[in-house]
Amino acid sequence: MPTIEVCLSPKLVPCFNLNGKTAVVIDVLRATSAMVTGLAHGVQAIRPVSTIEECQLLIEQGYIGAAERNGQVVDGFPFGNSPLAFQQADLAGKKVALTTTNGTKAIELSHAAESILVGAFLNLEAIVDYLKQENQSVVLVCAGWKDNFNLEDTLFAGAVVAGLGKDFETHCDAALAASALYARFEDDLFAAIQQSSHFHRLAKLGIEDDIKFCLQRNVYHLVPVMQGPELVPAMPQ
Amino acid sequence: MPTIEVCLSPKLVPCFNLNGKTAVVIDVLRATSAMVTGLAHGVQAIRPVSTIEECQLLIEQGYIGAAERNGQVVDGFPFGNSPLAFQQADLAGKKVALTTTNGTKAIELSHAAESILVGAFLNLEAIVDYLKQENQSVVLVCAGWKDNFNLEDTLFAGAVVAGLGKDFETHCDAALAASALYARFEDDLFAAIQQSSHFHRLAKLGIEDDIKFCLQRNVYHLVPVMQGPELVPAMPQ
Repeated sequence: MPTIEVCLSPKLVPCFNLNGKTAVVIDVLRATSAMVTGLAHGVQAIRPVSTIEECQLLIEQGYIGAAERNGQVVDGFPFGNSPLAFQQADLAGKKVALTTTNGTKAIELSHAAESILVGAFLNLEAIVDYLKQENQSVVLVCAGWKDNFNLEDTLFAGAVVAGLGKDFETHCDAALAASALYARFEDDLFAAIQQSSHFHRLAKLGIEDDIKFCLQRNVYHLVPVMQGPELVPAMPQ
Repeated sequence: MPTIEVCLSPKLVPCFNLNGKTAVVIDVLRATSAMVTGLAHGVQAIRPVSTIEECQLLIEQGYIGAAERNGQVVDGFPFGNSPLAFQQADLAGKKVALTTTNGTKAIELSHAAESILVGAFLNLEAIVDYLKQENQSVVLVCAGWKDNFNLEDTLFAGAVVAGLGKDFETHCDAALAASALYARFEDDLFAAIQQSSHFHRLAKLGIEDDIKFCLQRNVYHLVPVMQGPELVPAMPQ
């Protein structure tokens, strides 16, 4: 039986053996929500990069640049990591180069995995369906906030663990904890997130609409998967 | 108002500013439970050390040696980290040098804190009372298992967060998560731990009695505190 494990922070990735497994990278507020939204609205591919410099170089190669640091759009870039901005802009057929505080780093750290998917509440059901079909051991990699644990990514990991149910085996304490936390908070995710450090940190940036958008479940039935250096929609299995 | 934060793994210690704060190191199964038990039964002082070599050198200086790796007593040492062994042996007035897989390392990593205490379910109420009296900001440092998150240390952290209640402020997601997990599992800690990775890993070592002992709350009203290189019982405040 395939196994499911949860990695609660990028710092803990070395505790996991990713070889031959599927990694699902999670940065609910807001990188992976933005990736899912962008691809669902016709973006051809999203290239996650670590640095602002790489992002700038890719603009010269025809990519649309998107850069976020500390919750804000980096000066000079048309986009940050707001999924609503990706939803409203007409980026159909375009390629986007994206760098964010936490999410793109977590993708990079997961390179040893056999394949890398991107998950968020917006595509929860799609992720669960895909993993069940694939029937391969999985590590859910929470991007956290600046290397530390965060609540929103853990809750999403818990939702996936709950969704995979008895088809996957786990002796992972973090998976157990995440699913217990999701069971506790699933009826009102926004109330839980209002208590979180992320909400306090970013409330002053006026991104409450973004947060509410990101906490919606199953808006898009699409799974972004890394293909070479880019995220593209996975083909239906 | 003083703050309370929870550090879920030794790897995450760099995410916290320990300056001027009290650190409570937690390794419920079994290092900090053994430390509390030993001091409660008259051990004069416990010296936590990182390596087996340091532990051996201290034996030559008159310490009783205690060494655990991967849940087992290290060959040639009279004790490992079993609290029941410390309870049953007559070590009154003796000094113990102790090295364990996770707990002693977490103590070392917390050196930047103003003071370092050691907590376990066995002295839960004593820790909570002490922290309330002290009224200083606190970071609860979970020793985890080989750098990764574990359930039992997080549950104890949650018990302390719950105990400190409204006298301490927190915007720490890990504190929020830990207290929610404790609320979920406090009525049957043993059932929760039976699902944990630690239980599966160590069940074959026949330490179930030790685990049950460690999950008892408020057996000893004693707070071990680091004084120089040694843990001693804190003076009543």
